[in-house]
Order: sequence, then structure tokens, then C-alpha cells
Amino acid sequence: MKEIKVGLLGLGTVGTGVVRIVEGHHEELYGQVGSPIVIEKILVQDRAKSRSIAISADKLTEDPWDVINHPDIDVIVEVMGGVEQTKTYILAALEQGKHIVTANKDLMAVHGSEILAKAKENGCDVLYEASVAGGIPIIRTLSEGFSSDRITKIMGIVNGTTNYILTKMSQEGAAYEDVLKEAQDLGYAEADPTSDVEGLDAARKMTILSTLGFHANVSLEDVEVKGISQVTKEEILYGKRLGYEVKLLGIAERQDDFISVSVQPTMVKQSHPLASVNGVFNAVYVYGEAVGETMFYGPGAGELPTATSVVADLVAVVKNLKLGVNGQRVPAPYKVKKLKTDEQIASKYFVLLHVADKAGVLAQITQVFAQFEVSLESVLQQPNPNNPSAEIIIITHDASKAYMNQVLKHFQGMEVIDEIKSVYRVEG
Amino acid sequence: MKEIKVGLLGLGTVGTGVVRIVEGHHEELYGQVGSPIVIEKILVQDRAKSRSIAISADKLTEDPWDVINHPDIDVIVEVMGGVEQTKTYILAALEQGKHIVTANKDLMAVHGSEILAKAKENGCDVLYEASVAGGIPIIRTLSEGFSSDRITKIMGIVNGTTNYILTKMSQEGAAYEDVLKEAQDLGYAEADPTSDVEGLDAARKMTILSTLGFHANVSLEDVEVKGISQVTKEEILYGKRLGYEVKLLGIAERQDDFISVSVQPTMVKQSHPLASVNGVFNAVYVYGEAVGETMFYGPGAGELPTATSVVADLVAVVKNLKLGVNGQRVPAPYKVKKLKTDEQIASKYFVLLHVADKAGVLAQITQVFAQFEVSLESVLQQPNPNNPSAEIIIITHDASKAYMNQVLKHFQGMEVIDEIKSVYRVEG
Repeated sequence: MKEIKVGLLGLGTVGTGVVRIVEGHHEELYGQVGSPIVIEKILVQDRAKSRSIAISADKLTEDPWDVINHPDIDVIVEVMGGVEQTKTYILAALEQGKHIVTANKDLMAVHGSEILAKAKENGCDVLYEASVAGGIPIIRTLSEGFSSDRITKIMGIVNGTTNYILTKMSQEGAAYEDVLKEAQDLGYAEADPTSDVEGLDAARKMTILSTLGFHANVSLEDVEVKGISQVTKEEILYGKRLGYEVKLLGIAERQDDFISVSVQPTMVKQSHPLASVNGVFNAVYVYGEAVGETMFYGPGAGELPTATSVVADLVAVVKNLKLGVNGQRVPAPYKVKKLKTDEQIASKYFVLLHVADKAGVLAQITQVFAQFEVSLESVLQQPNPNNPSAEIIIITHDASKAYMNQVLKHFQGMEVIDEIKSVYRVEG
Repeated sequence: MKEIKVGLLGLGTVGTGVVRIVEGHHEELYGQVGSPIVIEKILVQDRAKSRSIAISADKLTEDPWDVINHPDIDVIVEVMGGVEQTKTYILAALEQGKHIVTANKDLMAVHGSEILAKAKENGCDVLYEASVAGGIPIIRTLSEGFSSDRITKIMGIVNGTTNYILTKMSQEGAAYEDVLKEAQDLGYAEADPTSDVEGLDAARKMTILSTLGFHANVSLEDVEVKGISQVTKEEILYGKRLGYEVKLLGIAERQDDFISVSVQPTMVKQSHPLASVNGVFNAVYVYGEAVGETMFYGPGAGELPTATSVVADLVAVVKNLKLGVNGQRVPAPYKVKKLKTDEQIASKYFVLLHVADKAGVLAQITQVFAQFEVSLESVLQQPNPNNPSAEIIIITHDASKAYMNQVLKHFQGMEVIDEIKSVYRVEG
């Protein structure tokens, strides 16, 4: 049967994995699509560089247009990363009727709707399973597995670096800076870790997941983001004592047609399935009105896990090619995006305060919560081991974000409160 | 746009859920397929019976052929259960070019390959996501999400009744009979619980999963089955002390082209993600050569979770209808099935023996293991609280099933061994 020719943009970690799987799982792939899949041309930065896999030199090029304009190539696999320049390549390839498989979350989070529109216009597939949670087929699950349901909540541990750091801090009582340093030495964190630790990477993934899950065009600007760089080992310890683990959660919620999407360190009840997702693993928890609670767990990154998703997309494109139905299943958001206001966003909160250790303080504080109609689930007061003030830990019942902000603003003006030490959202 | 007309065979729990979702999620469904989906005719046992949902009486029929032969119906959703009679209906419907969505694991486990072949012959879709693990889209995950990978192991908690019973026994130290009785009172277990507790239900599901995961026609007879009716609270207690939970696991393994499939109560290490799947929840753990460890967790049964999967399949059929590509994605096993021999099946084992409490016994016992080249991971000897014999608990390293059987046979002839109390496979 006719070979299917593939062009590869990028031969880094994931690109190398794609080559390995396409060659190593040749029999499986042939069994599924009935044609040999051949990688015809590969864009690299330096043709002369030595590599861990054997590739004939004439397949390598340093000119992207050798791949994009190649007349025999049907599918382009983009694993080079980058946003603006890469977008130019992808749009050009789509205009030539080439199908795209990409692992690029930045690109899809920022320009996803433009790219998908161009794909539709040209009858092309654009698949991007690997862009979120590496080896977990969550894009398929949201767009097909739960196609009949009304998804109301998606919570994801979608960044392995931060989950590794928080897991280590929790298990070893270590400080953030020490664990970050260790993660950098082990290659789990970048030299400049900002995108991971400040939650930006997770925010991009949540943009993609919430767009798919809620059928509305969520953009990166809609995601409220807070990272983990301010999380202390003391906060983690207090959480554990009360039965919570601190996790960097992406949380996307829908109520009627109003949605909210955020990324923030969150106190997750230990009995919740997300609480035991440790190390560099990822997991996405999906709540559907009909299906109820589900969770999908697996590796979030890595050469072969991510390449598995890329090649699974490639298989889907090739199946569509043979049926002549490419570009027909592009998910198109059919709902108008309406964001929740702070009045509509509700959750439990964990609040740690340092207060003056004298009579009547707790009464004053609980009075403020009452004034803004925030009811309390539990209150713990104890002496502060480090100074003469006292510590108060409060876990609220569901409260609107607007009211909680009022409470916190009020606290800032109160003389008996030395410091608002921590405020966390609580889930589970 | 033209309505898509659906015929429903059965209006029990799942059938009712299907009606609820098709009506209640009308907007979501229309948004995805671009046509209204209408349930046109429903086969029921008794038209006069009162129901929890409002359905106009002229849609109900007691004659299956009113549904199967209905000229306007494109898709038949089979949620009536049963095997032989149901197969006749399904084959007849396929011959008329009607597409099938079924939740019937018994039917698919026993006659799956015949039905899929007939579907292919007639250009029809047969989708059966709901037949395994109710609300978890595991069929899609295996056939599409991991299409590029070589799956080497599938372990599933795929029966909610037995997982509920084992969870209760573990958490409350209760006896099997008491928990079974309670589960029956709560409606989690049938009056005749044989199919669940003896592992037959799980075996059917593993037949379906291993056929898909390994691309070979696994049949029910290939699955070695042991249920939970002999599991005692003492064994669960010993397991916990050593860091294990007893779970009824379906285990499908592949090495090179040789496969084995079994269902059995298994000691699962507490750190393994399957160990914390509790109550009526299901989970399927999939190990792929490239992707590594993944797990999919969710409700295994219930009106709406199961109906979610049924209607997701219905959406897929309707999308195919609009593209004119039904019957083109039927997964066809392309490998010849080769079953592992007992020599090729390897795992760790947990063995609990009651032995004479005298000098040299342990030496004699470990000698037998050594003779058959089974090496030991840990050995615990303690007095038996209930009688003058001693208890020995042994956990082996990986050992072939053939050698373990030799060891156990040898034990039966040894005077110092009063009883081989328990033998469990160990995972995690």
C-alpha cells in the first residue's frame, strides 16, 4: 500500500521519541492503518549534531520550508516549540492542505482558535493530544468520551515540575528553594523555572482543556494564575495536620453558562484522588453532570509518553486520510464565553492569620466573617512557636470570592491582626 | 437539519438514563452533531408499567421487530441485556444496515468477533464503550489514545460489587458473608451474586479489554477465573500489615506475542494507584511500553454514568453517519492469539501456611522453594493465636506459575504443613 509520508519539525526530546515509536512500533502502526508510515524529512537546528538515534543525513534539513513545501508530505508533526514563528509555519502548511499534529501547548493556548479555523477552511486535521498532560489521552476523553455529558468541573495537576516540588516539600518537610535547586539538578526544572513555578505552563494547558470541556473559546487572559513560589513548608505542614495536601491545581468550573478558570496552589483533601498524585505524574479530574467523578492519571511529560500521544494523533490523521474525512471533526466551540464574576465564584478557603495573643481577638475575627456571610467549617487557635502572637487557622464553608476579598481587605485594617499569613482555596 | 432517529432495546436502568441524557443534554448533543437526536421507538417488557420518566405511549412497543424493522431508524441502542436472543436481534439489525450501540458485556465477550464481522460486512458501526467500566471511556483510550503504543499490561478493578465488598472488609474488618448481605440489602449486589463474586463478570470485561489492547481475539475460555468468596478477613488483615490491599484484579499481560488473562483476588501494594480505588468505583491501569504507567478511574456502573458512555457512542455513530464513514473503524485483531503456558506466567506470590510449631520447619519449607528456584522476598513466622501450630507468611520474588504449582503440590505431601491457608498473586 501507498506509504504515508510525514514531515517532522523539530528533533529534540519529543521528536526523537516520535522517530523511535514510528520505527519501533512499525508492526502495530501498520496493523492499525494498513499503510507504512515513513518520516520523510526532519527540520533540525544543526544537521551536523550527533544524535542518539540513527537517521540518514539526507532526511535532515535546516530549512523549515524543505519540510513545509515538500510535495509528498501529507502530515506535519510539529514538536519544535515556539509560538509566533511556528504559527507562521503551521498556517503555511495548512494552506497547502497538509495535516498537523502538534505537541505545542503555548501555540494552541494562544493561537488555537485561529489555527483550527484555518484547518477547517482547508479541510485539514489539527490534532494536539500531546499538548496537555503528555501521555494521558485527555483531549480525546473530553472531546469524544464525554461528548454526551455536560462537564461542570475540570481539575488538573498538569505541571510535573511543580508537582515534583510540592510532593518533595510534603514528604520531606523541605523548603521550596532547596527542592527547586534539586529539581534543577535532576533536570526536572528548567534553569529559568518561571513558566512552571509561576503557573503559566499550567494556565496554558487549562486554557486548552476548558475550551474543549466547556465548548467556549477560553483564552489565556481569562485564566487567573498564581504559582507556588510563595508556598512555605509550614503551610504544607499545617495542611497535612488538617488532612490536606497542597497541590498546584488548574480549576475550571461551569455553572449554567458561566465559567471560571484559574491556576493556584490549593489545599486538596487527602481522601480526594488528586491528593495522592505524586512526583512528576499528571492527573486530570473531570466531573460530568451525568458521569460523576472520573480521573485520568499518567506521565505528564518525557520523550516516549509525549511521543505516544503524538503518534496516536498521527494514526488518527492517517485513518481520516484513508477515509477522506480530514478536517471534518475539528471541535468548534458553539457557546458564547461568559466569565463568572467574583460574586459567582465560590469555594472553601483555608486562612492562616498571625494575631495578637489577647482576649476577644477570635471574636473580632469571626465577627468579620459573619458580617460578610462567610460561615466557618473549622477554627484552630494555637500559640505561635516563633513569636508572642497567636496563630489562627480557619477553614470556611463555600464562600464567594468577592466576599472573601472583602473579609481579607477588612483584616488588613485590623490592629489585632499582625499578618494574613496564607490564603488557599480548598478542594475535595 | 434531518433528525437522527434512534431505536432503544430495553428501558431498564441504563435505558432510562439514555432517555434522560438524550433529552436533558439536547443542546450539547445538537452542538456536537448538528442534528437533533430523537428516540423513536423503545422495546419494553410491559407497556403498561409506570415509569420514572414521561414517554408518550406510542413510542413503546413489546415487539422487538417494531424497533429492528422500523424503516426510519438509523441506530439501535441495545441496553436489554441477554446473550443468544439479543444476538439474533443485533445481527438482524446489522443486516438491515442499522448501526449498533451496546452496553452488553456478556454479548460482546461471547459473540463480539461474530458481531463485529457482520458489522464490517454491512458497513455498520458497532460501538460498546459502556460494556466495560461504565463511565470510564477505556475502550476509546485503548483503541485510539494508545493506538501508537505497545500495551504490555492491563490491570482492572472492573467489578463494583466485589470492590465494594473487599473495601468494606478491609476498612471495617468485617467478614465476607456479612458484607455481602449488606451489599445485597443496599442493592449493590444481586440476590444471586455468583456472576460478580465468582469473577465471571470481571472475566467478560477482561476478554473485551485484552482483545482490544493486544489485537488478538481473546475468548472467555482463555481467562482463568477465581472469585472472592473464599477471601477471609484474616487474609485481608495480614495483607494490610505487610502493606497490601486485597483487590479482585483482572490481569492481562503480554510478553512478545504471548498473552495471559486472569481474574483473581490479588495482594496490591498500598503505594500502587489501584490500591486506593475504593467502594463501587472502577479503575483500569494500563502499562504501555512507550507511555509507561497510566490509570483511568471512574464510576463502573449506574444509570447515568453508563448512559453517558452509551450516548457518547451514539454521538460517534451520528458523526460517522454524517461523514458517510460508518463501519470503517471497526477494530480488527491482526495478531494470532498465543497463550502463555504456566512456565511463561510469572508473578510474585503471597503464601500463608499453618505449620507444626517445631524446630527445622522453616528450613524444610524454604528448602522446597529453593528446589524449584523460587526465591523469597520476605518471610514472617509467628505463633498462631488460634491453635498450637505456627503461621508462616512468605512473599516470593517473581516466580513462574508452573514452579509455584510444583511448590504447592510438594507442600501438600509434607507432614509439617497442617494447611496451605492462602495463596495470592502479588502486584505493585
